[in-house]
Amino acid sequence: MHILVTGAAGMIGRKLTARLVRDGQLNGQKIDRLTLIDVVAPDKPGGFTGFLELSASDLSNPGAAAKAVAGKPDVIFHLAGVVSGEAETDFEKGYRVNLDGTRGLLEAIRVADYKPKVVFTSSIAVFGAPFPSSIPDDFHLTPLTSYGTQKAISELLLADYTRRGFLDGVGIRLPTICVRPGKPNKAASGFFSGIIREPLAGQEALLPVAETVRHTHASPRAAIGFLLHAASLTRQQLGGRVNLSMPGVSCTVGEQIEALRRVAGDKVAARIRRVPDELVQRIVSGWAERLDARRARDLGFQAEDSFDDIIRAHIEDELDGKVAN
Amino acid sequence: MHILVTGAAGMIGRKLTARLVRDGQLNGQKIDRLTLIDVVAPDKPGGFTGFLELSASDLSNPGAAAKAVAGKPDVIFHLAGVVSGEAETDFEKGYRVNLDGTRGLLEAIRVADYKPKVVFTSSIAVFGAPFPSSIPDDFHLTPLTSYGTQKAISELLLADYTRRGFLDGVGIRLPTICVRPGKPNKAASGFFSGIIREPLAGQEALLPVAETVRHTHASPRAAIGFLLHAASLTRQQLGGRVNLSMPGVSCTVGEQIEALRRVAGDKVAARIRRVPDELVQRIVSGWAERLDARRARDLGFQAEDSFDDIIRAHIEDELDGKVAN
Repeated sequence: MHILVTGAAGMIGRKLTARLVRDGQLNGQKIDRLTLIDVVAPDKPGGFTGFLELSASDLSNPGAAAKAVAGKPDVIFHLAGVVSGEAETDFEKGYRVNLDGTRGLLEAIRVADYKPKVVFTSSIAVFGAPFPSSIPDDFHLTPLTSYGTQKAISELLLADYTRRGFLDGVGIRLPTICVRPGKPNKAASGFFSGIIREPLAGQEALLPVAETVRHTHASPRAAIGFLLHAASLTRQQLGGRVNLSMPGVSCTVGEQIEALRRVAGDKVAARIRRVPDELVQRIVSGWAERLDARRARDLGFQAEDSFDDIIRAHIEDELDGKVAN
Repeated sequence: MHILVTGAAGMIGRKLTARLVRDGQLNGQKIDRLTLIDVVAPDKPGGFTGFLELSASDLSNPGAAAKAVAGKPDVIFHLAGVVSGEAETDFEKGYRVNLDGTRGLLEAIRVADYKPKVVFTSSIAVFGAPFPSSIPDDFHLTPLTSYGTQKAISELLLADYTRRGFLDGVGIRLPTICVRPGKPNKAASGFFSGIIREPLAGQEALLPVAETVRHTHASPRAAIGFLLHAASLTRQQLGGRVNLSMPGVSCTVGEQIEALRRVAGDKVAARIRRVPDELVQRIVSGWAERLDARRARDLGFQAEDSFDDIIRAHIEDELDGKVAN
């Protein structure tokens, strides 16, 4: 099996690649070829013995997408994209990367005339306030950011290309991935991870929004599980609606901080400093608070049961079980 | 006031232009300039004394959209598009005209750096089965045709460009416009008009679907009313959700035929011949049967009350009150 990962140098891309290499197979088929692309060349994953291609490529550039699918990968994980904050501050870049890049990939597949499985990471940012108390799977697409708009458009394209038989698509709307390891990125949602990650590492974290802000989270570990599970679903299981809201833990920022206190103690939780940021507050205020995600749960997608579990997953996966006290 | 109409040579475009010329004003402002564009040059409207530009232009061609908005029209009625049947049979043309053309227009406005009112004709084809018994305004966008996908994407773009302050957009989801005058077009919905228009003109009409098919209709006269009313709405009235399902008359094909019998008699209604068409049946089966359209009604949009009224509007507006018996 030949697998292509776009956005392979990103956090999810690296974790997915590592997992694919460790598993050695996908859907019961041996992985003998990996193509990893990103705007910067992805690192070579350790331990892979099959045929490996690493490429620095921007899918929105002419010809780049055609080159990416020239080897006719059986499964494509399309993770590449500009994050929410950057898509809001750089209008043209957001549309170029998130819309033209995705459309370019789908078009390249159509023109190559074969039918790969395409797993696309969408976002709950496709939904926009005002919301019901829990957002059903059939809720209107009314994004309130350019990022959410680009993801919603990509979902529509994925569904139409699937319906027309050009590819076999599945779009998974990720909740905020938390706790993101490493450095902060430009996502407006970055603080949700920062207020956990930094204190656990002995550093101060800034909180730009009120503690009453409610949001839905899943760990990076859960996100990788979503991606692999999405790749295993058949067209029959998915039916006509190929874009799905993923499950997650819905909690307030205050509840996140309480969970941190329970898991790591008062001293760690005291490392959060309140510094309101208007742009972040405005962006976040339009985001989904709670999703039903019934279809995804019925199809076997699994997230954590509590935010405590999300923090523990971070301590296990990123900190070797150690917290800076 | 300067008004631009795209798709001005089409049925709705011609009727809208005639109405604008007759009214001489829009929103209380004198219309002193009209720009009419279409892929074929629109006819010169009779009786207009202001500055008139007629242009044969395809908005998806490079530079065409910039040229179209070079005169900075205050109000743009963006009607141009490929119809549903053609977008389904010619995938590339549908995306080029309906997506790239619309995006090109919005981008040209953004780059021209002014803020016109943009009234966009979307379609109830943005919705796809399975449906609830009446589709609420916040129902999921799950189009089941490429045409519906292109309209849904255009709606999302219109909303984002409006939110960003590049223009002042309103998208109106037209139900099927019935009775369309003139020759049949390539829309899969064409028979809804054909089974009324042809018999009233003394000709046989083909019915490609079952009489149980339910659908929502509004007359061309109502559609022009929607367009003008949409142009009068303020940003405050519209709020964040700028795309609206229009009201209409929901009835079955059987009820259409009964209305024809009531309005024009048995002899006219007997001119319908049943000839099932699989492609049309498949496309139509995914379409909305009934829409709530509460927001639009609350905002003052008005459609007919019965299909009888729709037939009578056709006889008055197109047949000088005369039916071929």
